[in-house]
Amino acid sequence: MQLTPAPVTKLIEEFSRLPGIGPKTASRLTFYLLRNPADRAKVLAEALQQLHAKVTFCSQCFNITENNPCAVCSNEHRDPSIICVVEEPLDVIAIERTRDYHGLYHVLHGVIAPVEGIGPEDLRIAELLQRVRASDKVREVIIATNPNLEGEATAMYIARQFQGSKVKTTRLARGLPVGGDLEYADEITLSRALSGRSEIS
Amino acid sequence: MQLTPAPVTKLIEEFSRLPGIGPKTASRLTFYLLRNPADRAKVLAEALQQLHAKVTFCSQCFNITENNPCAVCSNEHRDPSIICVVEEPLDVIAIERTRDYHGLYHVLHGVIAPVEGIGPEDLRIAELLQRVRASDKVREVIIATNPNLEGEATAMYIARQFQGSKVKTTRLARGLPVGGDLEYADEITLSRALSGRSEIS
Repeated sequence: MQLTPAPVTKLIEEFSRLPGIGPKTASRLTFYLLRNPADRAKVLAEALQQLHAKVTFCSQCFNITENNPCAVCSNEHRDPSIICVVEEPLDVIAIERTRDYHGLYHVLHGVIAPVEGIGPEDLRIAELLQRVRASDKVREVIIATNPNLEGEATAMYIARQFQGSKVKTTRLARGLPVGGDLEYADEITLSRALSGRSEIS
Repeated sequence: MQLTPAPVTKLIEEFSRLPGIGPKTASRLTFYLLRNPADRAKVLAEALQQLHAKVTFCSQCFNITENNPCAVCSNEHRDPSIICVVEEPLDVIAIERTRDYHGLYHVLHGVIAPVEGIGPEDLRIAELLQRVRASDKVREVIIATNPNLEGEATAMYIARQFQGSKVKTTRLARGLPVGGDLEYADEITLSRALSGRSEIS
């Protein structure tokens, strides 16, 4: 006997396809929306439809934006001599929150991950090289990919592309997180923190 | 500077309003959909719109259904002398999975929870009483609300409504879960398991 109506099963299925949402959470969300007035589901549906319709990518840095070029690329007060390369649009937001960076960005939209079949050609790496070559202003490329295996490999790959050019490539410092506890730091972080130690001035 | 496009912020906001989804998960889901082809978001949006459009409640047991009355209520092979009262449609599915229950259901759509302002009048309790009174077949009402504070209070409230009538009200057995470990059982469960002990036949 089909006890769960098809539209309910369908929505549970669709929620389950999202990352980090299992069948239990998916059915909890579906029944939550079912209990609530139809407006709730409708507003969410509309927000989903607006997502791709109104959001585009900046043709210069490939960050998400409503207007092309994006707010950073079109801001004359930003320093065009530095480009910070990140994996995701969320990373741009994280770095902007520090209020310590005034250069431009370049969003790769992923990292090189051979296991998942993602190679350099699937990322915005060619566009980065093209962008740096076309400009005579870029002095430094900060490669701010995540400090994990794929992030490091991607950083190495990009750095290699700039070998022999006048552009300096740098990487964010690795070390103990502020507020962290030395006792609980893993060996790799601790050894990076040691080798990257700086003189107390 | 507005770094996140408004449609992105809006979808993050809408996801965050779902139970158990915090702002971090909400933005992870949003950026996941943004990275994927627009179809993915569209299919989810459509599933959301179909939810309330096609799903209705059974006028007899208030379970969710596409056809009214539902598959259980309209099934002549089900025993109309027993009604199992549950909190949610998901509970019906859980009990059906046992293949041990052949009576009818009544879905309350919640429990009495004074803290959240949910009283008996917000649940389908009046409809249950009306349904039992109108029928001369019902012999037993199994109150299968959850074995927690609100579930117990709701069960007590419903049982009181049937006091003095010929209908027997019962409650699901409390005890050690099958496959569980006596050592890790809490005191209340263990004391219920003790008082509810049965002779080995």
